[in-house]
Amino acid sequence: MSRTPAAEPDSHEDALTPLTLKRVGIDTYRENVAYMHRECDRYRAEGFQALAKVEIRADGRRILATLNVVDDATIVGCGELGLSEDAFALLGAGEGIPVSIRQAEPPPSIPAMHRKLAGERLTRDDFRHIIRDIAERRYSKIELTAFVVACDLGELDREEVFYLSDAMSRVGRRLDWHEHPVVDKHCIGGIPGNRTSMLVVPIVAAHGLLCPKTSSRAITSPSGTADTMEVLARVDLPFETLSGLVRTHRGCLAWGGTSELSPADDVLISVERPLSVDSPGQMVASILSKKIAAGSTHLLLDIPIGPHAKVNSMAEARRLRKLFEFVAGRLGLTLDVVITDGSQPVGRGIGPVLEARDVMRVLTNHPEAPMDLRQKALRLAGRMLEFDPDVRGGDGFGLARDILDAGRALDKMQAIIEAQGRRPFDPDRPPLAPQVLEVTAHCAGTVIAIDNLQLARIARLAGAPRAIGAGIDLAVRIGEAVEAGQPLYRVYAAYANELTFARQACERDHGIAIGHPDRITRLNVEG
Amino acid sequence: MSRTPAAEPDSHEDALTPLTLKRVGIDTYRENVAYMHRECDRYRAEGFQALAKVEIRADGRRILATLNVVDDATIVGCGELGLSEDAFALLGAGEGIPVSIRQAEPPPSIPAMHRKLAGERLTRDDFRHIIRDIAERRYSKIELTAFVVACDLGELDREEVFYLSDAMSRVGRRLDWHEHPVVDKHCIGGIPGNRTSMLVVPIVAAHGLLCPKTSSRAITSPSGTADTMEVLARVDLPFETLSGLVRTHRGCLAWGGTSELSPADDVLISVERPLSVDSPGQMVASILSKKIAAGSTHLLLDIPIGPHAKVNSMAEARRLRKLFEFVAGRLGLTLDVVITDGSQPVGRGIGPVLEARDVMRVLTNHPEAPMDLRQKALRLAGRMLEFDPDVRGGDGFGLARDILDAGRALDKMQAIIEAQGRRPFDPDRPPLAPQVLEVTAHCAGTVIAIDNLQLARIARLAGAPRAIGAGIDLAVRIGEAVEAGQPLYRVYAAYANELTFARQACERDHGIAIGHPDRITRLNVEG
Repeated sequence: MSRTPAAEPDSHEDALTPLTLKRVGIDTYRENVAYMHRECDRYRAEGFQALAKVEIRADGRRILATLNVVDDATIVGCGELGLSEDAFALLGAGEGIPVSIRQAEPPPSIPAMHRKLAGERLTRDDFRHIIRDIAERRYSKIELTAFVVACDLGELDREEVFYLSDAMSRVGRRLDWHEHPVVDKHCIGGIPGNRTSMLVVPIVAAHGLLCPKTSSRAITSPSGTADTMEVLARVDLPFETLSGLVRTHRGCLAWGGTSELSPADDVLISVERPLSVDSPGQMVASILSKKIAAGSTHLLLDIPIGPHAKVNSMAEARRLRKLFEFVAGRLGLTLDVVITDGSQPVGRGIGPVLEARDVMRVLTNHPEAPMDLRQKALRLAGRMLEFDPDVRGGDGFGLARDILDAGRALDKMQAIIEAQGRRPFDPDRPPLAPQVLEVTAHCAGTVIAIDNLQLARIARLAGAPRAIGAGIDLAVRIGEAVEAGQPLYRVYAAYANELTFARQACERDHGIAIGHPDRITRLNVEG
Repeated sequence: MSRTPAAEPDSHEDALTPLTLKRVGIDTYRENVAYMHRECDRYRAEGFQALAKVEIRADGRRILATLNVVDDATIVGCGELGLSEDAFALLGAGEGIPVSIRQAEPPPSIPAMHRKLAGERLTRDDFRHIIRDIAERRYSKIELTAFVVACDLGELDREEVFYLSDAMSRVGRRLDWHEHPVVDKHCIGGIPGNRTSMLVVPIVAAHGLLCPKTSSRAITSPSGTADTMEVLARVDLPFETLSGLVRTHRGCLAWGGTSELSPADDVLISVERPLSVDSPGQMVASILSKKIAAGSTHLLLDIPIGPHAKVNSMAEARRLRKLFEFVAGRLGLTLDVVITDGSQPVGRGIGPVLEARDVMRVLTNHPEAPMDLRQKALRLAGRMLEFDPDVRGGDGFGLARDILDAGRALDKMQAIIEAQGRRPFDPDRPPLAPQVLEVTAHCAGTVIAIDNLQLARIARLAGAPRAIGAGIDLAVRIGEAVEAGQPLYRVYAAYANELTFARQACERDHGIAIGHPDRITRLNVEG
């Protein structure tokens, strides 16, 4: 079709100076940044723009990065290509070696993302392609946000939620423990102090079930299970150490970290969190994909309901339960769901040290152990024990109680703490933060409601979880009668100014409603 | 309500070393980046995280930035706070002066953005608050994308489009020319070679109407009006120069730039472009807010329709027209809409130099002037002339033709070129790029369709608009009979490898369909 007056494609690129790799001492966290000098002839020939997405290759490896153009030769010179600290580590090549740069190709799944943006239903292959590109960090923040918002506003149907979960569980590492059952528990969250995992894991592991539990750190709450466990032991263990430890002790309580399991989930969360987007489909896919990748065969899911919990009504909890059951079924995961009372915090303490104290009191059968935490943990552990084919239906609770009361759960916990790396902690003298504020009742009456969100906010203002000894120690529960001036809770903070922030929040709303006992809303949750 | 065992809020912050401001020679384009050393005690005390949004204050001024943590003291030392080049310029303070940094407050309009994300209809005040925060760059890329996608998927109703347009026109600078009418034209785009503004402005200005036209550079097309005009004259003029020039010559053809007019539009576009999101509501708000801010009272809007144009059917064009008319009416802007034939490029050239040649040929009444470009420009100019109360309805076209044929439009263009800063250009010897490829017909037949998008893609692969002499010179139009082997167009490129990219694209699809004349789709557009 064509005559060509021009010469052969001589590729003027070949005439360019080769670049050498340099590590630039700038921490740009999860965003890879490449630095190139403005006078670099490659920069001028290719017409790269600042903030362009570029592909960097060296030593047979390849990463994507955002380009920053540099005018200061002490940062990078003309023949150099700089990478920020994380990007340099990710590329894994040495300084001074030859490196090439080119405009990054757009990720191949972008047309599918656009179809979701146009409100279409996507296929199983569409989700696989999108999730693979997301896990490889080929999506820009803009593209990632567009996908998350389109899935949220467009509402995935349940088949799509399965496709998404399945695709997420298939990228990254996938564990196989070579035994059956492999049990896990998960709570959808939102209830302060709810540290049942630290009781359930030792009970279940003491019975002999394999329970490789990993937990998260707090993102918007005053403490995550990993933060509380870190008061007692190391939680940031290398993957191989962890799996050896699980085989020996049948359980662990470690931080899931920037896990190699379901890496797409971490990338999606980096957008979902700041937007507080938490649609049912995304919640189900996030939770179940991690469990499948971790090799779990059986999962106990805790859905707390309450006026200030993530789920506010039984109808909503049931809808969510059906979606979890449908997707788990398609994924071949045995799922048991318990709907629990989320109308107030569980236990007395809110914040790493205060929660660790509560957990250790339950394990040691201490007289001041919070009974609600003990009861909830036994109930969940009992249901998990029934995943064991040799345990009769209905026997789980009694079995769990026996394990706890006999001190077998404590022994197991001590073994896990020792294996992960013990930190010094005395539950009778917990290292609480020095600044203290006592919040008291304005008037006499009955505690009719406790606002989980407001208490979490106050505990965070006081410095939890960054300051591990900061937080709230609750003195009352719903239904208790109080006198005017009687203490409701104490706030602990590391610094005076943080205590001031917490006090100002308490003065606006201390989160505890006092009134006539008839005004208490009783939730009709399962046993 | 509270007893306070703790001391006064002593604010441990005050004990921190003050920081001094440093300009860091890194160009991060529109994203403000602040650099702080990891060992800086302020960094440690506040627990700042890399990528956190921070507020920087110095000398009574304030900007928001994203934080990068530095480990190399040659970039910034412990007592310094660095800013990227644009951020430093935006703050407008000198090096070495004291500077403070703190966590940025979340933008106050975020709850309204979340209501849009939940599918709610927003109020006029909601849009004002959101747009103000966006213009002040308080939104992160994630929040911005969420807002754009929510408006796109949720579809704004026409009142909301008015609120959005009005809010956008109210932030930033707003011009008042102190006369009436102030006329402008705008084309919604998508048609290669469509450089009517460069003819319409001189005609209308020669008649005496005030027409302060600013144009954009190409973003996804092979040339924008500003790129083509730049072949003939400077287009990046300081704002004050430009307004003096408009008063003297009644018109200009300059680059709108990173305009102070409707600055929120530029920020929104930074997300809309990479996503190719271009919903009717966003298009209307973007166009009309800029025109209102620029002080226009009358606007002629060109909506081209065609199979490869932005708008594909008359029904769609009419819906868009109604929306433009409703919003313009509420904004107090007189609007006239013309729906034009967008089934093929306008003129022969595609790319800056080639288009400039076409424009100058029309202005000089050259024998090879493209008639379609001339006719379309006369039609649009005629409609604009009728905005003059002294011009009778129907007389505009004849008046425009007289102005063009008498050489008055050419004289006006030369005056504008001279005033903006002439560049050497000879329309008979246009500086075309040296590498040439001639694309010929495979077989005999009639040209039945021309794919605007594919021709634009080929012209961009050939290097347009970066290489100003690159692009496509079309030899045929729809309806013309061709022989096998007859030239369809020539591709010009600056480099052999770019010509290769263009040739590969031509080999896949050269964009010109040849067949039986009965297969031509005739569009029924207004005269």
